[in-house]
Amino acid sequence: MCSYVHPFDPLTPKEIQLAAGILRRHVTATDILFRVIALCEPPKEEMMVFLDNEHGIPHDTSAATPTRCARIQAYVDKKFCEFKINLDDQIVVSKDVLEGRHSHIDPGRMRKVELACLADPRVKEKIAALKLPDEATVVVEPWTYGTDGMNDMSKLVTMCWFYLRVSADPDANFYAFPLPLSVEMSSGLEVAHIFHLPLSDDDETDQPLKRFDHNNIHSSSEYHPNLSSSRRATTKPYHVVQPEGPSFSVQGNLITWEKWTLRVGFNYREGMTLHDIRYDDRSLFYRLSLSEMFVPYGDPRTPYPRKAAFDLGNDGAGICANNLQLGCDCLGHIKYFDGYLTTNAGIPLKLPNVICCHEIDDGILWKHTNFRTGNAVVTRARQLVLQTIMTASNYEYIFCFYFGQDASLTYEVRATGILSTAPISSAATTSRYGTIVAPGVMAPNHQHLFCLRIDPAIDGWNNSLQVEESVPLQFSPGSPEENPFGMGYTTNTQIVPHETGLDLNHLTNRIFKIVNEEKVNGTTGTAVGYKLVPFYSQPLLAHASSFHARRSEFASHAVWVTRYHEEEMFPAGKFTMQSAGGEGIASWIESRRGRGRELGGEVSGEVGGDGDGEDPSSVRNKDIVIWHSFGSTHNPRVEDWPVMPCEKMSVGLKSVNFFERNPALDVPISTQEKNLSVLVIDGSESGDGQEGKEDSGRRGCC
Amino acid sequence: MCSYVHPFDPLTPKEIQLAAGILRRHVTATDILFRVIALCEPPKEEMMVFLDNEHGIPHDTSAATPTRCARIQAYVDKKFCEFKINLDDQIVVSKDVLEGRHSHIDPGRMRKVELACLADPRVKEKIAALKLPDEATVVVEPWTYGTDGMNDMSKLVTMCWFYLRVSADPDANFYAFPLPLSVEMSSGLEVAHIFHLPLSDDDETDQPLKRFDHNNIHSSSEYHPNLSSSRRATTKPYHVVQPEGPSFSVQGNLITWEKWTLRVGFNYREGMTLHDIRYDDRSLFYRLSLSEMFVPYGDPRTPYPRKAAFDLGNDGAGICANNLQLGCDCLGHIKYFDGYLTTNAGIPLKLPNVICCHEIDDGILWKHTNFRTGNAVVTRARQLVLQTIMTASNYEYIFCFYFGQDASLTYEVRATGILSTAPISSAATTSRYGTIVAPGVMAPNHQHLFCLRIDPAIDGWNNSLQVEESVPLQFSPGSPEENPFGMGYTTNTQIVPHETGLDLNHLTNRIFKIVNEEKVNGTTGTAVGYKLVPFYSQPLLAHASSFHARRSEFASHAVWVTRYHEEEMFPAGKFTMQSAGGEGIASWIESRRGRGRELGGEVSGEVGGDGDGEDPSSVRNKDIVIWHSFGSTHNPRVEDWPVMPCEKMSVGLKSVNFFERNPALDVPISTQEKNLSVLVIDGSESGDGQEGKEDSGRRGCC
Repeated sequence: MCSYVHPFDPLTPKEIQLAAGILRRHVTATDILFRVIALCEPPKEEMMVFLDNEHGIPHDTSAATPTRCARIQAYVDKKFCEFKINLDDQIVVSKDVLEGRHSHIDPGRMRKVELACLADPRVKEKIAALKLPDEATVVVEPWTYGTDGMNDMSKLVTMCWFYLRVSADPDANFYAFPLPLSVEMSSGLEVAHIFHLPLSDDDETDQPLKRFDHNNIHSSSEYHPNLSSSRRATTKPYHVVQPEGPSFSVQGNLITWEKWTLRVGFNYREGMTLHDIRYDDRSLFYRLSLSEMFVPYGDPRTPYPRKAAFDLGNDGAGICANNLQLGCDCLGHIKYFDGYLTTNAGIPLKLPNVICCHEIDDGILWKHTNFRTGNAVVTRARQLVLQTIMTASNYEYIFCFYFGQDASLTYEVRATGILSTAPISSAATTSRYGTIVAPGVMAPNHQHLFCLRIDPAIDGWNNSLQVEESVPLQFSPGSPEENPFGMGYTTNTQIVPHETGLDLNHLTNRIFKIVNEEKVNGTTGTAVGYKLVPFYSQPLLAHASSFHARRSEFASHAVWVTRYHEEEMFPAGKFTMQSAGGEGIASWIESRRGRGRELGGEVSGEVGGDGDGEDPSSVRNKDIVIWHSFGSTHNPRVEDWPVMPCEKMSVGLKSVNFFERNPALDVPISTQEKNLSVLVIDGSESGDGQEGKEDSGRRGCC
Repeated sequence: MCSYVHPFDPLTPKEIQLAAGILRRHVTATDILFRVIALCEPPKEEMMVFLDNEHGIPHDTSAATPTRCARIQAYVDKKFCEFKINLDDQIVVSKDVLEGRHSHIDPGRMRKVELACLADPRVKEKIAALKLPDEATVVVEPWTYGTDGMNDMSKLVTMCWFYLRVSADPDANFYAFPLPLSVEMSSGLEVAHIFHLPLSDDDETDQPLKRFDHNNIHSSSEYHPNLSSSRRATTKPYHVVQPEGPSFSVQGNLITWEKWTLRVGFNYREGMTLHDIRYDDRSLFYRLSLSEMFVPYGDPRTPYPRKAAFDLGNDGAGICANNLQLGCDCLGHIKYFDGYLTTNAGIPLKLPNVICCHEIDDGILWKHTNFRTGNAVVTRARQLVLQTIMTASNYEYIFCFYFGQDASLTYEVRATGILSTAPISSAATTSRYGTIVAPGVMAPNHQHLFCLRIDPAIDGWNNSLQVEESVPLQFSPGSPEENPFGMGYTTNTQIVPHETGLDLNHLTNRIFKIVNEEKVNGTTGTAVGYKLVPFYSQPLLAHASSFHARRSEFASHAVWVTRYHEEEMFPAGKFTMQSAGGEGIASWIESRRGRGRELGGEVSGEVGGDGDGEDPSSVRNKDIVIWHSFGSTHNPRVEDWPVMPCEKMSVGLKSVNFFERNPALDVPISTQEKNLSVLVIDGSESGDGQEGKEDSGRRGCC
């Protein structure tokens, strides 16, 4: 490579071309359908040395820069394979034939499924039987098949859901007209089964097909401005002006802002990734990413159990990343990052503006008024925001990292877009499986379950997970040296010894701290750390023995801790498309507990006790990964229709006795001179001498 | 009154003067020490008629405007009394002598306590024994006495805590030098007891006093810019510009913004209050306010159990309201509201700028990209913010209401300011009661427990509380009509029949909805409602039989529902100063359960079943009040020192099947033309032809 590339940088377009070329020369086949050409991140062992050297920490300075490698997933002569390519030496390092596995969604193939489905004479007959309005267009929405055990999972199955677009405008909301049909399409693009969907809670599937109810045609479910003209005119313009430009600087993928440094990455599956996140030149996190996402629907009637989407594993947050627009998706001074994927032909595919970077004002950061002097000191909170947005068919997900001047970090998910819908008879007034949002339209209950992967490097490579609870002291009336008034409490803290999944408990104020036991805070006398501020939500509702639960292992506990393993990036397994389960985070842990047992190590998953260093499941003072599963049980509101106001979920990471004091103590004092705010005077402002005879005399800041 | 005053408007300065004059003429005493002259809000029964008439809803149009009344609390000849004054007829309506009660803190009296304490020869002797630096100043911080049963509660007790100001600058942080002394001052301003504070966890109180450790003098605990000069210079200016002005308008205390209307109120105790909150001319809430706040410390060693502050009942969020400054506390186009209290002499006291009102941008409100057309539609979320800030000695609390264009409402508390501190020996490396934040300084563990009072009027005056949980359906393998795949779930909803306290449960996705059972949503077929989005936190840690628990009854459950009663505004009781407990929300409920039992009504506090209309504890389809208790168990981080970055807690109120569809559907589409964002180009921007050969072709919005 001619120009400098950092080991964490995504592949450049030239590298993508190079990788494809190396593979083409290596395999004799001419039938190569490329699915992934992405950076194969260097082994963490090598990166530890590289990063220590980069940041001037004594390590092995003789170590070479990690080899630049690509990971290719491709169908070679119809066989799904994965290759590792050494770009420096231009050789294929490894090849795996992924027997029985499926790649993520191929939009080209999905389009073929749509066309084949609509062209099928039996489907045509069913559509004719519905007696649809002449001018309407049938829209087929192909979905991946949520495994239910009713099919051979080695064969790709697609479920087609039917909608009607009643307007000629291609942006009309067809989800407002779900049709009572569903078709299972085979891997050979044949119609395998046609379902008549139930039209009431007590309806069975595959009752005789009913005619479309023309009374259900309505125009109140449009969101596109071409189709919904009535807009409020009261919202006045709001501009963010930064006369000296933004406070961040960007060099390649390295962002520097307010003592933070971090590298931005991007790949087809996780979308935005963050690497080597540091504050004031101290290491915090090796890598942060959304690692998986599962959206199971809760309607048990056939064939709805098949609606269960892995939006990262099957769709890809990178593949589905929106092209963010200045002034629309982002307000203020915006820096954009592009992403590069590959076409099926192995040609670099540019996705412009997949990540935006800008600053926001977040109100007051800290304030104190000395009541004796009346003097107030105020600082305002500036935040750096990194945002990416994916469209998963009907839904949009907005993923943001917010960086604070106080060294805090917030990950936020906003769910928006359009609800997935199912038909319902207009005779039905309610449904126990969802909410009626428009005539003939039921929005089924479902869950959105996310898993944030936190690969910590809190002041060093070996970390531990500490669980703290606040507990009352024993009430000891009459015993002055203990807790005579019944108000005393203390904290119980325990290091988690072994890989395990843990639950939240607000009743005990359970706090999860990632600590570096080798680094003791000179002031507090405790291990330096960062705490997880979790998002409280319901775990997966599906039964533990269901396919849903076996496929989405991460969703059964809120917090997981595992040993770092290079191949363990995806807590529902590497290949989620029609997966059978048993390959996720719980399985990893179980396999090592087994080995731990063989080794005679202690394998309790309980909090407390010391980990045994030889035990592969030990996570005390080790290179560990923390996973936070969170989400929402989304029982729709009619207010989520026809397009959903953002539902926010947020997760925090905050220093706990990591610094010597408030790291934002040095933030500039907030003054009107700098902030140029404007006083609003309205007609009601009293200038008639009604003021009190005395003034409180309280001074403010500035 | 010459100018129009709305029944919800706080008393004007003229009305305060008038009320004081009426009282002075009524009582013969000349010794009147005024503590409160505030609006006595009209009876809700009268306001229901008034508001219905005001909003054109047929009611009794012949009803008179409610009488304008003032509530006065004053010491008349040293006796604490409460009066109700009819300002229209200029008469005293009622008088209560508040035997054994105490008024809220009187800063003048506290100053006298400080001086008397410092002047006491025994205290002087103790201070001399400490061998303090010559140039340092002893600062006495008087605190209300957190009842511990060791004193006659009818006599006002003050606890004095001692600190050292080592700098000549009056804004130096004296909390950085806590002294091992505490003095109990009697109601007669006499020293009642001197405590030697313990200096390690195992130390007993009242060990021989040790000399002040001069090695503990440090300069790293300053926050004031005069004393901490090192400030980062990287934060570039950030301006909010609204060329057409803000989107809100204000008439007196009526705010109109984006389909919202509401009235702002202000009083000495609750600070900011909101009244008659409506969206699109539909009633949502009669009144919203922070109703109480309790801050108990968890260190059981004598005399620390006395550190337990009712910051509303004892201090007053209005009394302690900050004078907000343009460009410091508030960024953008700011409208300020002033508050008026009274001096001890009954003269109106103006508190300027106690509430600020402005708009913020909150990122994306909703978005959808039609993947078939590539067309994206984006709206941005504008929010209206009402902010007030109180200083409670060392701490600051920022209280904000955020209004959304989607008819959602968020209440946020930010805790900032300075930790309360206790001395600790520099030999101690850690403490089980708190965190060492600087040499010789221990910040003890404590809780902040807030109670938001929600007086709903969801589409009418009678509402119910509905509890919804999401529950798996019975797994029925092999039974195709039930839940054969184990993924089905549904919701259980129950109306709470009787007054009770309830807990949060994220594991069952427990949702609290305030519904109007008389109004059914035409689309969903369910009662219109608003849901509480609670803040998950730990309830009070103190033992149920402790004074703490008996005094702060609201803190034992997260959600309470009660029948509306005019006098039930404060869930820890009306008079919290040295209260003995048993007068809060649990006691109210218990008293009516008792009456319910006498009446033969069903008195189960469990969810489920029908309420009995005759039962005074029935809350189904009644004029009810919802109370949300939340807060934080604050085990300090050293990063909270010397001034604490805001700790945010937020509570939401969101429509659930209240509207016919997304109420923000008509928000203007976000466009660059309106938003004038700026593209940031940095040196790394690639112009070297590295772009891919193919572009994803995805279009954005605009």
